[in-house]
Amino acid sequence: MNAAIIAVGTEMLGPTRVDTNSLKVTAVLETYGVPLVRKSVVADILSELADEVEFAFGHSDIVITSGGLGPTEDDLTREALARAFGLEMQVDQSIIDKIEARFRARGTTMPEVNKRQANVFIGQTTLNNERGTAPGFHLEVRGKHVWVFPGVPHELEWMLERYFTPWLAEISGGVARHRRVLKVAGLTESGVEEKLKPYYAAHRDEPLTILASPGGIELHLVFDSLDTIAAREQEMLALLGHHVFGYDHDTLESVVGRMLAERGETVATAESCTGGLLAQRITDVAGSSAYYIGGAVCYDARAKVDLARVDPGLIKAHGEVSEEVAVALARGIRERFATTYGVGITGIAGPGGGSEAKPVGTVHIAVATATDHAHRKTFWGGTTRQIVRALSAQTALDLLRKRIR
Amino acid sequence: MNAAIIAVGTEMLGPTRVDTNSLKVTAVLETYGVPLVRKSVVADILSELADEVEFAFGHSDIVITSGGLGPTEDDLTREALARAFGLEMQVDQSIIDKIEARFRARGTTMPEVNKRQANVFIGQTTLNNERGTAPGFHLEVRGKHVWVFPGVPHELEWMLERYFTPWLAEISGGVARHRRVLKVAGLTESGVEEKLKPYYAAHRDEPLTILASPGGIELHLVFDSLDTIAAREQEMLALLGHHVFGYDHDTLESVVGRMLAERGETVATAESCTGGLLAQRITDVAGSSAYYIGGAVCYDARAKVDLARVDPGLIKAHGEVSEEVAVALARGIRERFATTYGVGITGIAGPGGGSEAKPVGTVHIAVATATDHAHRKTFWGGTTRQIVRALSAQTALDLLRKRIR
Repeated sequence: MNAAIIAVGTEMLGPTRVDTNSLKVTAVLETYGVPLVRKSVVADILSELADEVEFAFGHSDIVITSGGLGPTEDDLTREALARAFGLEMQVDQSIIDKIEARFRARGTTMPEVNKRQANVFIGQTTLNNERGTAPGFHLEVRGKHVWVFPGVPHELEWMLERYFTPWLAEISGGVARHRRVLKVAGLTESGVEEKLKPYYAAHRDEPLTILASPGGIELHLVFDSLDTIAAREQEMLALLGHHVFGYDHDTLESVVGRMLAERGETVATAESCTGGLLAQRITDVAGSSAYYIGGAVCYDARAKVDLARVDPGLIKAHGEVSEEVAVALARGIRERFATTYGVGITGIAGPGGGSEAKPVGTVHIAVATATDHAHRKTFWGGTTRQIVRALSAQTALDLLRKRIR
Repeated sequence: MNAAIIAVGTEMLGPTRVDTNSLKVTAVLETYGVPLVRKSVVADILSELADEVEFAFGHSDIVITSGGLGPTEDDLTREALARAFGLEMQVDQSIIDKIEARFRARGTTMPEVNKRQANVFIGQTTLNNERGTAPGFHLEVRGKHVWVFPGVPHELEWMLERYFTPWLAEISGGVARHRRVLKVAGLTESGVEEKLKPYYAAHRDEPLTILASPGGIELHLVFDSLDTIAAREQEMLALLGHHVFGYDHDTLESVVGRMLAERGETVATAESCTGGLLAQRITDVAGSSAYYIGGAVCYDARAKVDLARVDPGLIKAHGEVSEEVAVALARGIRERFATTYGVGITGIAGPGGGSEAKPVGTVHIAVATATDHAHRKTFWGGTTRQIVRALSAQTALDLLRKRIR
C-alpha cells in the first residue's frame, strides 16, 4: 500500500509560497507506515488537474488532495475528479443547509456561489468541516481510495485528525513507526551538534533530523520501537541536560505556562523592542489567564515610566537600552501587579536606532522576583528586525523557565 | 510554452522537509512569462521517476529536474530519463577527467562510483558545475526541452543563473511578466467574489489568483503588459473601493503606520483577548516608534482597571467582554498617553470561557479619538483560539485605518 498527495492551486506555483499541507498528511502516513511515492502541486487548470489525478491514482492506492474546494470558479477539484473517474455529481441539500446556517450564525447571508460546495458524488462519504464552509469527502473508486480536503491549513489539520487518521489506523492495522521530538532552547544549531558528537559517533547509520528555527531547535527521533526511542532520548538528555525544555507539541510558552500553573505562580511583562510579542506568545496558550495578569508595551520612554514605573533618572543615566532599565521594567511591572515574576525586555531591533556603543541587535532581558533578579545581555547582529524580536522573546521565555526551575 | 518541475529524492517526502529549489526555478520562469503547470517531488524509485518524467514531458514544453545526480545507487535521474525517452547513455571521458581533477585538488582520489556521473546522452549539452561534482545537462527531445540540475541548493542556484536564465531569456524573447498584488481587508473571500462578479464576467479567461489568510485577502494580477495590469486594477478598485488597503508588499500594519506618520498622529492600544498581538503587529513595522507610544495587555480585570483606567463599575455592570469595556479600554489608553487614537479589544478567544450569551469567538473592538469612537462587535465561532486572535487584530487594524481616513 502506498500514497500520493496532490495540492491544488496556482498560487502555490509562484516563487513565494510552498505547500505545507502535505507535511501534515505525511506525518500521518509515516505514523502508520504508508510510504509516499510522490507529491505534486498542480495549477487550477481542469485538464491538467484531471490528468494529475488519473496519473497519481494509477500509481498509488491512496490519493490525498488538498485545496480547490472553495466556492469560486477556480476551485476545480470536484470537477477534475469527476472527469478523471467518469463520475457524475449531484447536489446535497443538507450541505447547503449547513453552509447557510454557518453564514446565518455570523449574521450574513450565504452568497449564491457557495452552492457549488454542495456538489457530491454518489457513494461518497462527506466529511463535515467544523472549521469552514468547504466539506471534504472520501471516495472509493476501483478498490482504491481518494481523500479530498480543503486547502486552508487549520481546516485540513482538523479533518485529518478527525477522519483520516482513525481510518488509516484501522486499515493499516495500527501504529508502525513512532516519532519523538526533543525541543531545545538556549543553544545554537552548531552548539547542539557539538554537544551531540558522542551520540553521532555511537549511532552513525541511524536517521536523526535536526530542525532549527527562531522558536528553538528540534531533534526528531523516528524508530519502529518505542524502546529504541526511549534509549536514544536518554542518551541525548545526558548530553543536552536542561537545554531540553520539552517534547513533541510542547512550545516554550506552553512549558512555562504549565510550570506556573502547577506552582500557582503568576507573571507580568514589560516589553520595549519586542512590542508585545512576549505577551502574545504567553497568551497564545489556552488557559493562560490563570497565570498571566497583564503587561505593558513600553515603546516610548513615557510608557516605561508610566506603565512600568521605571525611574526617569535611570533612563537618563543609562539610556533606554541598558541592564538597569531592563531590570527596572521587570521589577516595576511585577510590583504593579504583585505577581511572582516580572519580565523586562529592552533593545534595538533595527534597522534604525543603533549606535557604535549599542548596535542594532543589542537586547537586555531581565526576570525579577520579590527578592532577586536575573539578567542577560544578548546581541544578534546581521539579521532582521523580525529575527531579533523573535530571538529576544524566545530568550526571555527561556530565562523565565530557568528562573522558575 | 509552459513548464513542469520535478524534484527527485525520498528525503523530501517526509514530514519535515520541503523542496525549496523549485522556488528558485519558478522565479526565473515567472520573469520570462513561462507558466508553471505542475511541480512534483518523487521518491528514488526508478519506475516511478521514469513515469513522472514521461507524464510531465507529455504535458509541458520544458521540464526541469533537480536532484538524483549524485554518484550513489539511489541517484536515478539519468536512468529515469533514459527509460522515459528510450535513449542510450555513454561515458564522457572529459567529465571523468574533471571530477578526478576536482578530487585531486582536494588531496583525495575519486571513488569508483563517481564514474556514474560521467554517463551522458548523445547530443546533450553538459553543464559544468563549478560548485560540485555533479554536472547538469540540457537535452532536446522531440522539440521539447529537459534541464537537469543537481539538488544541492547553492549548486543549483549557480547553474540556473549561469545556464538556464540566459537560455530562457533568449527563447522567450526577453519579455518579462509583471505581478501586481491588491490587498483587501474587511471582506471574506466569498464577499470579495461576490463584489468581483462583473470583473469575472468581463475577464472570464484571464488568470486571477485569490489568496485568503487571517492577514487579509490578496488578489494577484499577472500580465505581460503593465497597461493591462493598470486597467484591471482600476476595474477592481471600482468594485472593491476602500476595502483595498494596499499593494504588493504592504501589510495592514505598514499601511496604517504610513498613514499615521504622514499625518503626524499617534496611537496606543489596550488589548485583552489578543494578548499583545495587535501591539506586536504595529511594532513589527520599522520606524513604528514614531507613532506608537505604548500599550497595555489587560488580561486580568485588574489590568484593565489599573493600566487602561477602566471603571470597575462598568466591568461589573456589563462584563469584561462588552461594547462598554472595549470603548473604555480605547478611551482609557488614549487619555493615558494623550495619543490621537486609542484602540481597545476585549473578547473570548477560547477554547474555554464562553457562555450562551457570549460564546467563544465573541469580540468587541473600539477605536477612540478625543471626540468620538467607533465600535464593532464581531463573532468568529467554530475556529481556533489562534484564528480568533488573528482576525481580531486584523479587524482592529482595519477599523483604525478606516477611522484615520
